[in-house]
Amino acid sequence: MIDLKEITSELSVNLKRHLGQILPHHAISEIYEYALFPTGKLFRPLLVYAIGRDFKRSGWQGNIIGPQSDFSYLASAVEMHHAYTLIHDDLPAMDNDDYRRGKLTVHKKYNEWKALLVGDGLCVGPFALLSQIKSPAFPDVLKFFSWALGPKGLILGQVLDLSEEMNHSFVNLITTHRLKTARLIQTAIVGSYLLTLDEKKDDRKQKYRECRDLYKLGDAMGVSFQLLDDLTELAELKITEREQKINPWLRHSDEALQTLLHYMQIIKKITSTYNGMPTFSLVLDDYLSKIKKILNEGSVNIERHLPKKEALVPIMGLFDGIHQR
Amino acid sequence: MIDLKEITSELSVNLKRHLGQILPHHAISEIYEYALFPTGKLFRPLLVYAIGRDFKRSGWQGNIIGPQSDFSYLASAVEMHHAYTLIHDDLPAMDNDDYRRGKLTVHKKYNEWKALLVGDGLCVGPFALLSQIKSPAFPDVLKFFSWALGPKGLILGQVLDLSEEMNHSFVNLITTHRLKTARLIQTAIVGSYLLTLDEKKDDRKQKYRECRDLYKLGDAMGVSFQLLDDLTELAELKITEREQKINPWLRHSDEALQTLLHYMQIIKKITSTYNGMPTFSLVLDDYLSKIKKILNEGSVNIERHLPKKEALVPIMGLFDGIHQR
Repeated sequence: MIDLKEITSELSVNLKRHLGQILPHHAISEIYEYALFPTGKLFRPLLVYAIGRDFKRSGWQGNIIGPQSDFSYLASAVEMHHAYTLIHDDLPAMDNDDYRRGKLTVHKKYNEWKALLVGDGLCVGPFALLSQIKSPAFPDVLKFFSWALGPKGLILGQVLDLSEEMNHSFVNLITTHRLKTARLIQTAIVGSYLLTLDEKKDDRKQKYRECRDLYKLGDAMGVSFQLLDDLTELAELKITEREQKINPWLRHSDEALQTLLHYMQIIKKITSTYNGMPTFSLVLDDYLSKIKKILNEGSVNIERHLPKKEALVPIMGLFDGIHQR
Repeated sequence: MIDLKEITSELSVNLKRHLGQILPHHAISEIYEYALFPTGKLFRPLLVYAIGRDFKRSGWQGNIIGPQSDFSYLASAVEMHHAYTLIHDDLPAMDNDDYRRGKLTVHKKYNEWKALLVGDGLCVGPFALLSQIKSPAFPDVLKFFSWALGPKGLILGQVLDLSEEMNHSFVNLITTHRLKTARLIQTAIVGSYLLTLDEKKDDRKQKYRECRDLYKLGDAMGVSFQLLDDLTELAELKITEREQKINPWLRHSDEALQTLLHYMQIIKKITSTYNGMPTFSLVLDDYLSKIKKILNEGSVNIERHLPKKEALVPIMGLFDGIHQR
């Protein structure tokens, strides 16, 4: 039986070790550590672990979570890259946020140029970790990583967000979620899958189908999780004017519901195709049970904010079979 | 006979093509182009080309400057990475510069969040180019690239600069030049050298010695070029208070001179070890002749600012044999 808490703690230890490998002996290193620790829930590294475990080739004897395993380098690289995007997003020129995960943002705690440079360091650093991957899939992992998180990917998502193009239409909103949220999840999932491949033994057709399915899975997760996240914003008694203006559940409630149901369906379908993907499902259920709890507790407020009556009913139905933790 | 202007123009065409490969169909792409074009003198891409040409294995039939050659991808990657560091350096939180190469800086022409994100894009994008390298040296190139330009390398140099630690001692200044300037030059030189290797045929010992020499060459170039650059700052009739405070030729003139002579000696020695490195020497001479011209034209002012009489004499001696263009 897998203990997600234990795995998370091992992923955190690896992250600390990998960070140490790329940092200089200089006071600036404290800020890199401040930006990464204490960690969040390490959702993306957990996905790397889960996909590695669910798709590893029979007979493969490695330890997925060993600090020198290919999967561990990818897990830490994805988390560091995520951290860089948050540091830059929080800067005054972008979202201008003072707090992140209950503590001061990097530029508030230190200053702007330090936040900018530590962000840059956490953007370049992950590639030093990736360069230690031994799998023959390494060039493909790098290709996917730099495409998904580059100018056509995550960074374009940030552009759509900051330029407010995101709020011009529901389609634009979904595109933004796809780029800004899904691409990092896809990097974790598809990247980890690529690392399970054994170039010689694998059937190319099957490989292609699996890869495409996991790409779709990550896409569906990114979009539906963001929509769920938008919904949890309505759990408050009063919602901000900003939220009134941009929350898709207030502006496009029917489309938001249909889209959420559609993508949650895709997640269920792909998961069941591959023997239920037991480790992945554990990570997914853990995430969804937390969302379920927030929605349950805020249901009165949410129902009041939503334009239609009983609009939460079909959404809560999505969580059937996920027990509350 | 090599025409550097022609080569530079081909490198520029490649850069445009490679940039096109990583950009989205979105208005933001205009800003990426603004940041890169018209190009500067493409000094680092020229170094990639020169080292590739001077060290290519006998019998190798490839075209170094072809748009799909490993060398071309490296050349464009180094130039893009350089551009990202400039965009971020120019931001108000860092150097707060309004002009760069005679035109408005990216944040002045557009705005801060666009400059920040386009910088990020030009930081991630080069890795997408590197991932197209076919040489078996690819993991080594990526390792060197991400080490030299990461938190222990170029970014630490920026930290030393912004924190003013650079100005605490002459040693700190040289360390900063080494990290902030030399690392990019070394990435071009050592990276290009690695691409010339043929894993099977090469003698490991010779390979190691050559690689170490080129590493030292890049280091010597970074440090001595920065010192020469600092010297050209004194060619003005009046120099700013800031320059008075930090210019090493005013504060540590003896050490600056000794260091410059030392590193220029290293450059000459290494160059002559490898059959004169004809292409590299052409690029080097072209650069030095431009410096020589500035120093010649500003010699009266420079001599007046420098604490010792006739201090320029040994420096001008360095340019012996380099004709004025």
